[in-house]
Amino acid sequence: MSKITAMRTDDVRFPTSQTLDGSDAMNPDPDYSAAYVRLETDDADGHVGHGFVFTIGRGNDVQLAAVASLESYLVGLDVDEVLGDLGGLWKRLVHDSQLRWLGPEKGVMHMAVGAVVNALWDLKAKRAGLPLWQLLGRMSPQELVALVDFRYLGDVLTPDEALEILEKAVPGRAERTERLLESGYPAYTTTPGWLGYDDDKLVRLCREAVADGFRQIKLKVGADVADDVRRLALAREAVGPDVAIAVDANQRWEVDEAVEWMAALAPFDVAWIEEPTNPDDVLGHAAIARGVSPIPVATGEHMANRVMAKQFLQAGALEVLQLDATRVAGVNENVAMLLLAAKFGVRVCPHAGGVGLCEAVQHLSMFDFVAVSGTAEGRMIEFVDHLHEHFVTPVVIEDGRYRAPVAPGSGAEMVAESIEVHRHARD
Amino acid sequence: MSKITAMRTDDVRFPTSQTLDGSDAMNPDPDYSAAYVRLETDDADGHVGHGFVFTIGRGNDVQLAAVASLESYLVGLDVDEVLGDLGGLWKRLVHDSQLRWLGPEKGVMHMAVGAVVNALWDLKAKRAGLPLWQLLGRMSPQELVALVDFRYLGDVLTPDEALEILEKAVPGRAERTERLLESGYPAYTTTPGWLGYDDDKLVRLCREAVADGFRQIKLKVGADVADDVRRLALAREAVGPDVAIAVDANQRWEVDEAVEWMAALAPFDVAWIEEPTNPDDVLGHAAIARGVSPIPVATGEHMANRVMAKQFLQAGALEVLQLDATRVAGVNENVAMLLLAAKFGVRVCPHAGGVGLCEAVQHLSMFDFVAVSGTAEGRMIEFVDHLHEHFVTPVVIEDGRYRAPVAPGSGAEMVAESIEVHRHARD
Repeated sequence: MSKITAMRTDDVRFPTSQTLDGSDAMNPDPDYSAAYVRLETDDADGHVGHGFVFTIGRGNDVQLAAVASLESYLVGLDVDEVLGDLGGLWKRLVHDSQLRWLGPEKGVMHMAVGAVVNALWDLKAKRAGLPLWQLLGRMSPQELVALVDFRYLGDVLTPDEALEILEKAVPGRAERTERLLESGYPAYTTTPGWLGYDDDKLVRLCREAVADGFRQIKLKVGADVADDVRRLALAREAVGPDVAIAVDANQRWEVDEAVEWMAALAPFDVAWIEEPTNPDDVLGHAAIARGVSPIPVATGEHMANRVMAKQFLQAGALEVLQLDATRVAGVNENVAMLLLAAKFGVRVCPHAGGVGLCEAVQHLSMFDFVAVSGTAEGRMIEFVDHLHEHFVTPVVIEDGRYRAPVAPGSGAEMVAESIEVHRHARD
Repeated sequence: MSKITAMRTDDVRFPTSQTLDGSDAMNPDPDYSAAYVRLETDDADGHVGHGFVFTIGRGNDVQLAAVASLESYLVGLDVDEVLGDLGGLWKRLVHDSQLRWLGPEKGVMHMAVGAVVNALWDLKAKRAGLPLWQLLGRMSPQELVALVDFRYLGDVLTPDEALEILEKAVPGRAERTERLLESGYPAYTTTPGWLGYDDDKLVRLCREAVADGFRQIKLKVGADVADDVRRLALAREAVGPDVAIAVDANQRWEVDEAVEWMAALAPFDVAWIEEPTNPDDVLGHAAIARGVSPIPVATGEHMANRVMAKQFLQAGALEVLQLDATRVAGVNENVAMLLLAAKFGVRVCPHAGGVGLCEAVQHLSMFDFVAVSGTAEGRMIEFVDHLHEHFVTPVVIEDGRYRAPVAPGSGAEMVAESIEVHRHARD
């Protein structure tokens, strides 16, 4: 019988603001950071569970304080018991009434729960000797349903309906796993489109993206409509008519403004408009979706929890759900969101980039392909080409696709030296 | 020229779980707490600005870490400049792109901004020698509009519309101020209705509430329908037919469950059903509102921000807006929410109780009466009779009404000895 013996936390920050990687209309100078957590056990196997919350700099210490506050909930617990009922642990953490007051189920405290839940999934996958997507993809429909908290979802998704979705996907699991291992999962790239890049760099990176096999790129928009039109024209010319171009406004617009602005960009054949307005605004997104149709609305990287996801789907406020590996309370809540998307037949194209988000979120899309939606049609995972070298098992992109990871774990483990070198000095 | 010279923070916790004061269906054992902040200046007047976030125990240290992270944004600023443009300061704090990532505009980080914004309002009111409600009530419509961030509200409320609402209320300001100073503002009491109290205590406290002049009481419900029916029958018998009884489910129910449960409670003439389900669920509340009509739906104490308020109003998801003094980013955001409520003609009956919430929120209702909605019709402020002794200017309730405070400040200042005695020892 082994126990969780320690939680270690690190404030890791990369000085990305110096190069304007990651710059957009709302986030001009992010320093990509991770509120990083490691869970240790006294098991002879020596496995450590790694997890994190991605932030963009200042406040990473606040996020870390929230993660650290969960130490007493975890240290001392029996490892097998915890890993055998991660649905139960999720509920104990998320529904702790005193901690819940700090959200509820949103913001710093909720993301902190996500980091430790994800660290436990990393540990579980390592102990099983499987990449997380395969660990999840081998669980029975009943086991998967037990991971999900259906509270507040009852009006659109019951455990029985979830079971039905998952059981329907069981027959093809083995074949889809083979296909993933052979040819990976589609990616699109945001690398060319950061707002801080000049036109030459934009065009060069667009061409490189096409040469690298990507079938979709994404451009940041929303600061100036004339600039956006010019950049979109340059990008369209660079990639040709057959490569899709999505645009991302990073919450810059009012509802009416989004509709008007998109009318100016529509001639360039836009694959989707991402985060047109405030991420809490379900009704606003629904109005925008009607106003910009047939251009799909995409959102999700700031979607606080499964209750918001439910409403966006109910209201027809999105056509592309961009779930994020560290915004909600971990793998369990993302499984709930995958099930909701499957129920509504909506595409899931996860948000990635940042620090380790590509490494983490690929497991969710691949699990979805194997065991939930059973399809990758129209789906792809965001890819941004930076900071991967800091991870022990960095993503591998070949011909515009994520190669399926085979190393045990969730992908979250950062190189120990990177943590040391980029540990933030207290102010 | 004076400057902000220091920010001091304290982790203050009261052991309320020992007596089950504050117990409800979601929060069985709260320890009412405050993440408390003081802003000092080098001005000869010696005034200190006091603010706080109310929490219910564990996690108060996390909340405090978020408050403390704002120190560098404030210390060193010119006092007159900051207090002369609190709308500008609000935007700088809320829209700091790196901190914003941690919400955005919700949870621990957003409430931290609220605490420091409120501390600045306390300071401003003390320097003006006015209670906060009068300070606000004397500002011009233009000055009030400048406090509000209209971002993401454009589809329902523009600055011009806000100005129109405020200008319409100007003529009656003086008369309504007089009326407030004479006869106060209506209150209702939650003191009888905590779920942890036995039937005898419930009945005794109901009778006392009526004897004390309250025209509405509130009962916690949602744990067991048979218990709720019994307690509601006892309460109705105790208060008679002319005193209103609201019920509060503290987010316990699914959407359908709320409608069914309320059908069982409807015969007892329920004044409103509060927090029937998850506070993020705009569409769920709208469905419940249709299902329980004509019983009004009330919510707001966990409403994360003005964008959520906008949607609840757009969707007809509430008839009673229960704004909270420390859930959102301070006075400025609550002014936005008062304007939204006025636009939609919805009653505002603030959430109070906790630690210092009565002291703080009374100023918002009284300001609303004087300068925004111009009416107290159907409106009242929650009152819970505990922990007031820890405040320098505790609320005064007479014949079921809040007496208008006349002491300068926002009401947030805690007795220094109470802070010392109840300062939480680090684990």
